[in-house]
Amino acid sequence: MSENFFTNVEKIQYEGENSTNPLAFRYYDENRIVMGKSMKEHLRFAACYWHNFCWPGSDIFGAGTFDRPWITPFGDQMAHAEQKARVAFEFFEKLGVPYFCFHDTDIAPEGATLQESHDNVSRIVDIFGEAMQRTGTGLLWGTANLFSNPRFCAGGSTNPDPEVFAYAAAQVKHVLEATHTLGGENYVLWGGREGYDTLLNTDLKREGEQYARFLKMVIDHKHKIGFKGTILIEPKPQEPTKHQYDYDTATVHGFLLEHGLQDEVKVNIEANHATLAGHSFHHEIAVACAKGIMGSVDANRGDMQNGWDTDQFPNDVAECTLVMYEILKAGGFETGGFNFDTKIRRQSTARDDLFHGHIGGMDTMAKSLLNAAKLIEDAPLSDFVEQRYGHWNGELGQSILNGTADLESLSKLVLENNINPEPVSGRQELLENIVNRYV
Amino acid sequence: MSENFFTNVEKIQYEGENSTNPLAFRYYDENRIVMGKSMKEHLRFAACYWHNFCWPGSDIFGAGTFDRPWITPFGDQMAHAEQKARVAFEFFEKLGVPYFCFHDTDIAPEGATLQESHDNVSRIVDIFGEAMQRTGTGLLWGTANLFSNPRFCAGGSTNPDPEVFAYAAAQVKHVLEATHTLGGENYVLWGGREGYDTLLNTDLKREGEQYARFLKMVIDHKHKIGFKGTILIEPKPQEPTKHQYDYDTATVHGFLLEHGLQDEVKVNIEANHATLAGHSFHHEIAVACAKGIMGSVDANRGDMQNGWDTDQFPNDVAECTLVMYEILKAGGFETGGFNFDTKIRRQSTARDDLFHGHIGGMDTMAKSLLNAAKLIEDAPLSDFVEQRYGHWNGELGQSILNGTADLESLSKLVLENNINPEPVSGRQELLENIVNRYV
Amino acid sequence: MSENFFTNVEKIQYEGENSTNPLAFRYYDENRIVMGKSMKEHLRFAACYWHNFCWPGSDIFGAGTFDRPWITPFGDQMAHAEQKARVAFEFFEKLGVPYFCFHDTDIAPEGATLQESHDNVSRIVDIFGEAMQRTGTGLLWGTANLFSNPRFCAGGSTNPDPEVFAYAAAQVKHVLEATHTLGGENYVLWGGREGYDTLLNTDLKREGEQYARFLKMVIDHKHKIGFKGTILIEPKPQEPTKHQYDYDTATVHGFLLEHGLQDEVKVNIEANHATLAGHSFHHEIAVACAKGIMGSVDANRGDMQNGWDTDQFPNDVAECTLVMYEILKAGGFETGGFNFDTKIRRQSTARDDLFHGHIGGMDTMAKSLLNAAKLIEDAPLSDFVEQRYGHWNGELGQSILNGTADLESLSKLVLENNINPEPVSGRQELLENIVNRYV
Amino acid sequence: MSENFFTNVEKIQYEGENSTNPLAFRYYDENRIVMGKSMKEHLRFAACYWHNFCWPGSDIFGAGTFDRPWITPFGDQMAHAEQKARVAFEFFEKLGVPYFCFHDTDIAPEGATLQESHDNVSRIVDIFGEAMQRTGTGLLWGTANLFSNPRFCAGGSTNPDPEVFAYAAAQVKHVLEATHTLGGENYVLWGGREGYDTLLNTDLKREGEQYARFLKMVIDHKHKIGFKGTILIEPKPQEPTKHQYDYDTATVHGFLLEHGLQDEVKVNIEANHATLAGHSFHHEIAVACAKGIMGSVDANRGDMQNGWDTDQFPNDVAECTLVMYEILKAGGFETGGFNFDTKIRRQSTARDDLFHGHIGGMDTMAKSLLNAAKLIEDAPLSDFVEQRYGHWNGELGQSILNGTADLESLSKLVLENNINPEPVSGRQELLENIVNRYV
Ligand SMILES: [Co+2]
Ligand SMILES: [Co+2]
Ligand SMILES: [Co+2]
Ligand SMILES: [Co+2]
Ligand SMILES: [Co+2]
Ligand SMILES: [Co+2]
Ligand SMILES: [Co+2]
Ligand SMILES: [Co+2]
Repeated sequence: MSENFFTNVEKIQYEGENSTNPLAFRYYDENRIVMGKSMKEHLRFAACYWHNFCWPGSDIFGAGTFDRPWITPFGDQMAHAEQKARVAFEFFEKLGVPYFCFHDTDIAPEGATLQESHDNVSRIVDIFGEAMQRTGTGLLWGTANLFSNPRFCAGGSTNPDPEVFAYAAAQVKHVLEATHTLGGENYVLWGGREGYDTLLNTDLKREGEQYARFLKMVIDHKHKIGFKGTILIEPKPQEPTKHQYDYDTATVHGFLLEHGLQDEVKVNIEANHATLAGHSFHHEIAVACAKGIMGSVDANRGDMQNGWDTDQFPNDVAECTLVMYEILKAGGFETGGFNFDTKIRRQSTARDDLFHGHIGGMDTMAKSLLNAAKLIEDAPLSDFVEQRYGHWNGELGQSILNGTADLESLSKLVLENNINPEPVSGRQELLENIVNRYV
Repeated sequence: MSENFFTNVEKIQYEGENSTNPLAFRYYDENRIVMGKSMKEHLRFAACYWHNFCWPGSDIFGAGTFDRPWITPFGDQMAHAEQKARVAFEFFEKLGVPYFCFHDTDIAPEGATLQESHDNVSRIVDIFGEAMQRTGTGLLWGTANLFSNPRFCAGGSTNPDPEVFAYAAAQVKHVLEATHTLGGENYVLWGGREGYDTLLNTDLKREGEQYARFLKMVIDHKHKIGFKGTILIEPKPQEPTKHQYDYDTATVHGFLLEHGLQDEVKVNIEANHATLAGHSFHHEIAVACAKGIMGSVDANRGDMQNGWDTDQFPNDVAECTLVMYEILKAGGFETGGFNFDTKIRRQSTARDDLFHGHIGGMDTMAKSLLNAAKLIEDAPLSDFVEQRYGHWNGELGQSILNGTADLESLSKLVLENNINPEPVSGRQELLENIVNRYV
Repeated sequence: MSENFFTNVEKIQYEGENSTNPLAFRYYDENRIVMGKSMKEHLRFAACYWHNFCWPGSDIFGAGTFDRPWITPFGDQMAHAEQKARVAFEFFEKLGVPYFCFHDTDIAPEGATLQESHDNVSRIVDIFGEAMQRTGTGLLWGTANLFSNPRFCAGGSTNPDPEVFAYAAAQVKHVLEATHTLGGENYVLWGGREGYDTLLNTDLKREGEQYARFLKMVIDHKHKIGFKGTILIEPKPQEPTKHQYDYDTATVHGFLLEHGLQDEVKVNIEANHATLAGHSFHHEIAVACAKGIMGSVDANRGDMQNGWDTDQFPNDVAECTLVMYEILKAGGFETGGFNFDTKIRRQSTARDDLFHGHIGGMDTMAKSLLNAAKLIEDAPLSDFVEQRYGHWNGELGQSILNGTADLESLSKLVLENNINPEPVSGRQELLENIVNRYV
Repeated sequence: MSENFFTNVEKIQYEGENSTNPLAFRYYDENRIVMGKSMKEHLRFAACYWHNFCWPGSDIFGAGTFDRPWITPFGDQMAHAEQKARVAFEFFEKLGVPYFCFHDTDIAPEGATLQESHDNVSRIVDIFGEAMQRTGTGLLWGTANLFSNPRFCAGGSTNPDPEVFAYAAAQVKHVLEATHTLGGENYVLWGGREGYDTLLNTDLKREGEQYARFLKMVIDHKHKIGFKGTILIEPKPQEPTKHQYDYDTATVHGFLLEHGLQDEVKVNIEANHATLAGHSFHHEIAVACAKGIMGSVDANRGDMQNGWDTDQFPNDVAECTLVMYEILKAGGFETGGFNFDTKIRRQSTARDDLFHGHIGGMDTMAKSLLNAAKLIEDAPLSDFVEQRYGHWNGELGQSILNGTADLESLSKLVLENNINPEPVSGRQELLENIVNRYV
């Protein structure tokens, strides 16, 4: 198959807000300048390899529904991988997405030995190199799949068997180097099996130490090979395991602090994982920014009525405006970006549905960027917040923060001056109305 | 009222497993020796002052239903407080619970000034001192209520107004000292309002710093006055706030590490808060033990179909057996114990319902202790776990853990020896069946 | 107090989309004609008496924070009730809300006997009559509070004590008649205590029969007195009870069918109750429309991270557009409307916060109405849906629906013609993008 | 493969409570008489074909881990199906489970045409017939898989394409007849795809009518062929669809009433589906009993921290005691039984793990039966409940229930007699303690 796969789709163009062409952008105009940078530079969109090209539309109750001729247990698996790579780059180019992301096992079949697997991956990495050159597509991040193969069913680095740790290490080494070769901007670790199914057979302390050792090896190797990208951990609370160690951003932050890794690792926050953990997407972003470990974002949302990873395209401009606002306030992405770790619905069986999903997601984020930029410019929220905490800049506030005051001095102050503070309105409804003006 | 309040209840006795007397213990025999200590020493039960004696049986949709004559806005509030104290100690003594817990605002009315409030508290603390002496009841922990008064509606230490911080500091100083005076074994901080209702008006970073300063002041004061008890933070994910900073044990651990407080503070884990945070009770205990910050337990459970703090008495022996097993493995309580931060149901309007609730809770934990002790003795779980991770004691495992190995050496090892580990059964069903033999 | 309470607020005006006046409407222009009716007639907004004027800003962990001088256990309770009524009508008038709603216990203090309670209610109803005349405010619905008084702690009509049933009946009779007197358009039953806290003490079957008897009496009485309004049940899954019988719309529909009441009763759907029941707001509306029992709406939303009734103002235009679209498709409200069963946040302590909340909610719904009208006009969704099910208008579809076909004939058809249908794209992403064009 | 598959397992024997043999029953003694019937007759256990023999241990993030040589896309699929049947009956026989259950697609490969699929199913049904005869295993229920094949991705009977309805009809006809041939006791419909992924493309009303037509055809055909078993609907709230029409028991009951099918169809309640729907397992059973539609049970539980169908073996004796108590009170199973729609964990990779799971589940239910029988005999709960509602047998209660009383007469009664009922304790804690005596 040397011809095109998406035969009915041309390169997606920006046509403006009033366009009703479903295969055009209404907000994402990659060269439009917002707050001094192009939309492309702000948003740093990436499409993912796995859900788009390696997933046949199956779910736990049903077989694949999608038209993906290269997904079949029969025939030459490397030929299938090559076809897949061609289709993927056709997609990236037509969509106009500046980056993509992959797992090793997405791009090439596993071989009979790890050496064979490495060789398969390397062959496709070569093909990627050319295609990236040709199309201008970059690699936002690479990652090793340490969760699908049965050998990882009890974890990768946190496995009770050190040979599995070794195998995982070998796999990460290969993908980290491939990522480096391809000029990747980040390397991601998602610990899909780094957790437990039951505490009855699990030694939490031990597994925590194994995991920290692994992370240190990855960091050491990164420096050794001169990879300048960021190491990212992607938090998720559960699924497939009952409990995943990287539960949420605060938990990952605690783990990094425990092992002195807080300056070497950031988080890749997924909207869907935020809500599965009982947080809003906005919350997870805000926590990561506050802790200084905001790295990158998987923009796919969940369904609030479903307790699993539905990986839907973002379409809520109101929510994403606040997310974008938080990211802009923190200075914007450095090496990170918005990856779509998204699945079209199992019923979306037309080839062009992949485009509709991504166009909607990209437009949602582009509109959110425009809104957020205006929120930064007009500053109604930050003005309110600054004024709200204003007394902390006064004498009392400073004495508390700089350590001069203690329980005794403060108690004396209150008792002697009969201090009795009154509540001040938090103005939540007013602020929500103001935000709605920007959405 | 100098006579008894619980006129139909005598001191609760241990009558053994076959008793059908609802006002007797079937398992809790305080002097029975289990693994070298009495049940009383193992379990260190406490009853709480607030839900038992300060709550009239109201909920958000309805008025109080309970017969608590001292709860009324009319009349002499200090006289009511004294009556309440008499009834409380009648209860503690008849129940045979070795400890109790209180907030400052539970025990005495707030005055027109903080000085008046302090004086009121001090008068009741004196009464407590005598009653404790007389009855042998100890104080498991004291705490300041920094969440009910409107002044705390935007937080105590994390308030945008530093005067509220100062007020909270003065209040904590007073209760910490009262706790010390009464020989309390711990001091608890539950940050009911230390969180946010909306991110729109909140500066997360700033509030985190305020909170850490507060905690340091409390620790400094503890040392200054020579209080030897433990400072405990009680995690809860939300309610009353939308998001509470002390979300769960892992989050608190991260916060302590961030501010270098991990050796000074432990957690008071509540079963109900565990499940609200998306964790099992067992999980939170296991995490706290693994991190070395297991302090004390509020044993009250939630209802798995209700998304708020129902604060029900523990009655699930299977679950509590695993909790108790985890605590015994970690060496048992030091200063902590099992507090019942429990509410009888709003429909439980008979005076003796308070006894039924506590008897059921104490028997549940006592039976769980017996089961757990047998699980420790026979060691079916720990034997399995040790064997499961056994290879980590070998050469490969040790080279990983001691830092000799790196990605390169491990990769070489796998490739040269063609290592290809097979999954080994995790035996979850078998282990669950084994646990059921002990329940 | 004969002067105004909301001294800083004048009558709220419509100022158009670009207004930045927080005390003005940007979308709600009551006389603007949309699809042949004014916005006022479409939306039929109501403010509620209870959360706005009877709730002091307390929650389960804290005392009231609001400035509501008439809420106090001290002083002449009827005088307080009269002051409250004046403030309420000042609010309705300044907000320009065409309707209000109340419970009996909201408007007047309970007396020592039911007769006294009735008399108190009647006195305020007279005041309401005058105020409604003067201001042009209508009554969307009345209801009896059968959940706050301790006598109802085990239910009203579903109480194990038939005297409580009788008491509830007497109360409903009085409020139903008052509602009729005031020209109310609906009468609502929310069964806050009609459920169970534990199955251990509950006879489900019996309570179901009691409830059905009650409902029939209410319907009979409605007809007897000539009340032409609609009887509405408000579904809610739990809280305050562990389980509430009117769990969701489908459950209520089943209950109505079981007792032959489906033509006499409709539902009052609350957004917050929808999400607590595991449904989207849109879902509950769509189900009620499909079943022909869509009556009225409590527009207040929940917080997706909090498992209780937060009763927040609607502010999600995207969600409410679909709700409004569904209602317009079904022909719009008859006797129902959008009531705000909303609470400002406990920190919203300024008097004008009540206005900000309602203005935001009303603008959200008004903008949603405009969006939905355009969705109806352009018909991108309904065109798609009609075409999607188009084959059901063909011979095969009709033979199935009209009962001609049976398993045997269909089996024969498939086998003989080797029918093997292929999936057709459900186009979810495309449709979501289309909706976003209208939001 | 003519030899045994479970080479290390002999027929599982009852060895009594003190046995520590993990491959023996401790409570399930099939011939033990309880309340006049054998345990076997009471519990009517079934093992399922699908999760045990057709599922390779895959999940949405990983490949199969189990040793199931017949699951492979390569080779003669009918030979694999025959091997699978041999292994299944070896398992049923060794486990001593009196029944099994299957879907058509579990037992035989789908052919190129429906005729071929039917032929394949029929060949295996013949094999089943012999094996059932030989081993004494019965068929608890059969069912058609209308959810895995891509053709059903938008539903079976609720599909927008009537040809899919026809195909589904043909498939159900074949399995219903096969079930009849094999002497099956029930026929189950689980509507895995009968729901929606988005309301945007869905016509709820139309799909409800389609579904009702389908159900009527199935009932007609059942009578036509003389099948005496029960038609069962298995409620589930969501997964794989966003929303499933058969949400819970109350919803199914409403649907049956709407279409006059309440005497023809009962429910198959799954514990895991109950908790996903926001209910306790006990609740769903109690509702089905109260409504008279309790049919059969899938005893597999969920994990309360995971929002998807984990399908774990029941191991909570306390919960299952109440379930069993409810079933015994309602007269026990007629055609239904306890099916294990259970999955061993993906890490449970040893062949005998299938036995450990089932033994644990069967013992849990057997112990629960013993407990429940004692609860029936001693009657502490039913005595309490009867006494609690006792006044309903008096004059007032009867006048309400028989329709003599109305709002007017009751109002008069209350006002004239100044009736003012006091709350009576619901005794929840006491009742929970009593239940714990039986667990
Ligand atoms: Co995800
Ligand atoms: Co992701
Ligand atoms: Co709590
Ligand atoms: Co607590
Ligand atoms: Co509500
Ligand atoms: Co409402
Ligand atoms: Co299931
Ligand atoms: Co099932």
